[in-house]
Amino acid sequence: MGTVIAAVKGTRDFYPEAMAVRAWLYRVIGEVSASFGYQEYDGPFLERLDLYAAKSGEELVKEQAFVFPDRGGELITLRPELTPTLARMVAQRQKQLVYPLRWWSFGPFWRYERPQKGRTREFFQWNADLIGANSPESDAELIALCVAFFRRVGLTPEQVGIFVNDRHLIETLLSDLGIAPERHREVFRLIDRREKMNPEAWEEYAFSLDLQPTQLDGLKRVLDDKSLWQQSPSLQRVFAALKAYGAADYVHFDAQIIRGLEYYTGTVFEGRDMGKEGRAILGGGHYDNLVADVGGEPLPGVGFAMGDVMITLVLEKYGLLPTWNPAPADVLVTVFDAEHLLKSLEISQTLREAGLRVIGYTEAVKLDKQLRYAHRAGIRYVVIAGPDELARNQVTLKDLQTGSQTLVARDEVASVVKAHMGMS
Amino acid sequence: MGTVIAAVKGTRDFYPEAMAVRAWLYRVIGEVSASFGYQEYDGPFLERLDLYAAKSGEELVKEQAFVFPDRGGELITLRPELTPTLARMVAQRQKQLVYPLRWWSFGPFWRYERPQKGRTREFFQWNADLIGANSPESDAELIALCVAFFRRVGLTPEQVGIFVNDRHLIETLLSDLGIAPERHREVFRLIDRREKMNPEAWEEYAFSLDLQPTQLDGLKRVLDDKSLWQQSPSLQRVFAALKAYGAADYVHFDAQIIRGLEYYTGTVFEGRDMGKEGRAILGGGHYDNLVADVGGEPLPGVGFAMGDVMITLVLEKYGLLPTWNPAPADVLVTVFDAEHLLKSLEISQTLREAGLRVIGYTEAVKLDKQLRYAHRAGIRYVVIAGPDELARNQVTLKDLQTGSQTLVARDEVASVVKAHMGMS
Repeated sequence: MGTVIAAVKGTRDFYPEAMAVRAWLYRVIGEVSASFGYQEYDGPFLERLDLYAAKSGEELVKEQAFVFPDRGGELITLRPELTPTLARMVAQRQKQLVYPLRWWSFGPFWRYERPQKGRTREFFQWNADLIGANSPESDAELIALCVAFFRRVGLTPEQVGIFVNDRHLIETLLSDLGIAPERHREVFRLIDRREKMNPEAWEEYAFSLDLQPTQLDGLKRVLDDKSLWQQSPSLQRVFAALKAYGAADYVHFDAQIIRGLEYYTGTVFEGRDMGKEGRAILGGGHYDNLVADVGGEPLPGVGFAMGDVMITLVLEKYGLLPTWNPAPADVLVTVFDAEHLLKSLEISQTLREAGLRVIGYTEAVKLDKQLRYAHRAGIRYVVIAGPDELARNQVTLKDLQTGSQTLVARDEVASVVKAHMGMS
Repeated sequence: MGTVIAAVKGTRDFYPEAMAVRAWLYRVIGEVSASFGYQEYDGPFLERLDLYAAKSGEELVKEQAFVFPDRGGELITLRPELTPTLARMVAQRQKQLVYPLRWWSFGPFWRYERPQKGRTREFFQWNADLIGANSPESDAELIALCVAFFRRVGLTPEQVGIFVNDRHLIETLLSDLGIAPERHREVFRLIDRREKMNPEAWEEYAFSLDLQPTQLDGLKRVLDDKSLWQQSPSLQRVFAALKAYGAADYVHFDAQIIRGLEYYTGTVFEGRDMGKEGRAILGGGHYDNLVADVGGEPLPGVGFAMGDVMITLVLEKYGLLPTWNPAPADVLVTVFDAEHLLKSLEISQTLREAGLRVIGYTEAVKLDKQLRYAHRAGIRYVVIAGPDELARNQVTLKDLQTGSQTLVARDEVASVVKAHMGMS
């Protein structure tokens, strides 16, 4: 056996066990999204580079996006995030759509980052957005949607939390410290880096931005103040609404939450493992203007994205991933010999039509080999249809779990197996 | 309003109505696959170019694949088909996997083709493969799986069919015509083109391959012979098995079915609209050797792929797409005024926790505007919670379909709505 050609770095193979987790995540996300009245949509996975020029942060597009010329020479991007696509799609039908619009999606994204724990170059993301509504209560709804997901998968407020901030509040306080508005963007980046750097390096970074010692002291005071939210009428309403949604126990104020994406304007939030491990689980915020810079009329909204990699790690850590059932089928119909192969296929089809998941062995190999297959695959029920049984219109039904073996009339096999399995 | 930035040519936007079709297709495919004991898996959407060098046809990779260097200079391909990925994944775990292996997948693929009816550059595909089994009955199982899908979505044998051939049979007959084995590949390509060209151009193509007039006559006789399958013991067993699977009414022999992919060796098949419209709906076949040329030990198998574009067109043509329900939610909880906003959010959350899909209006706008929204969005039930009602612990429940309006106790709203909807 030679060397197997390698997969692309930062991508994942979804063998059935891993695929079951992704499919479960997609299903749960769909249920939770629907419970809040969100409709599923999706965009293309390829977009033109210029779509991102206006919307995404510079780092995301210039440093992390996969960009390539297609055969026609146009610069194509593997989507690194969904919001620009959402903006384009809303702008295209801006007049026909019914607002407030609630949309969700789950699909692949690509970022050329250094692969590490919780980070791959190809990943999946849940996106949800509420567009055409503009109130702190709208912002709260998206946070409540995240909390509903946490509850649905069994994550408690001790395990995960959502940290909320208001960019307007921080802007006001930066101005109070004498930091001019045109410098807020770079100070936001500084704030965003605080948790990711050691204190000395961070202070050096601050001074490199020409912050005065008193400004830095003031900034640290602001960032450490847990009651700051009381100065923001908007955050007061966000937290009151979260109480009404029954979501307050998961939610915390944190003045350090900024979020990198440049289109966020008011409320911003981030989901985290309370054990402080790894990257953010999810991130989102309010935007004043979704579609104007892709060619539409201004529309406010709020949205978030949750990647599949971190949430899966967190669920695994807390033992909350669903139990994997490796059995591909409920029943294996074995083949007695070449002469009786077609009879076995017929029986497998009858069982299938009765609603069971059925594998019919497709080769007349030794029965032992077929039973070994059933055992290794984890299939519990095995049907044996030999000439003696078939002559009496019967089959042998073997339960590999109990070892029991019974003769069953051919047209009763399905109901017997279903009764065993507790299916009606 | 400016010009909206355009989508990439050959990609599709999935607005909720289109997304509902794709999600339905994925669900049905999953159910049908599971009924035959197939497990869901997926590979990365990016692969290294060299993975395709061995497996895919030259045209597919050289002319149709999206290939680009990543930031590290490696040539990356947006996967144009799944089989090479499947081969890589099986080779990686060849010793641990349990055979016969039955796997299915549904995901995106990319081919740089001229967009036209039934063909996009970004599309989705159902793939199913049975690996490590080697019998005509195994080949028949995959065809039966396709037929089970057709039945499940309501397509009849009058509307769609599966056309089957055996490459070995055709090879034997080509040799009988004095065409040397090393020329079979080019003659296969000739056969594959017959339906797609006019007769004169096709004959010219044949002569350009140096076929003698008697050989061409012989070839045409072979291709038009509907009873040729009786000369193939393998096809005889395929058709007998299809009868046992209850699938025979959809299946036809056609000596012209070749399939472009070069790894097919024995049975090949193709699904088509019986109205002969458009491209093939699906295509598949038997391969002797899935994994050896990506570095594994030889393994036989059989598989097929069905794209979402053609099947959706066919389902639409026959009126078999599911009815679209545009309503994003069962209930809208309106907001009486700013003062009562939180009460409304509380009620929305209670209804949600009772299992309903609920939108809670998040802004204290005029009730008229909220009712207009419910009407336009197609939401049937509306809850109005004003101060008078709330003082008596009641709400008003409006049925926008009948126009009826009743006072309901707050904790009975969920059960009343569910009773109306026929939910238990």
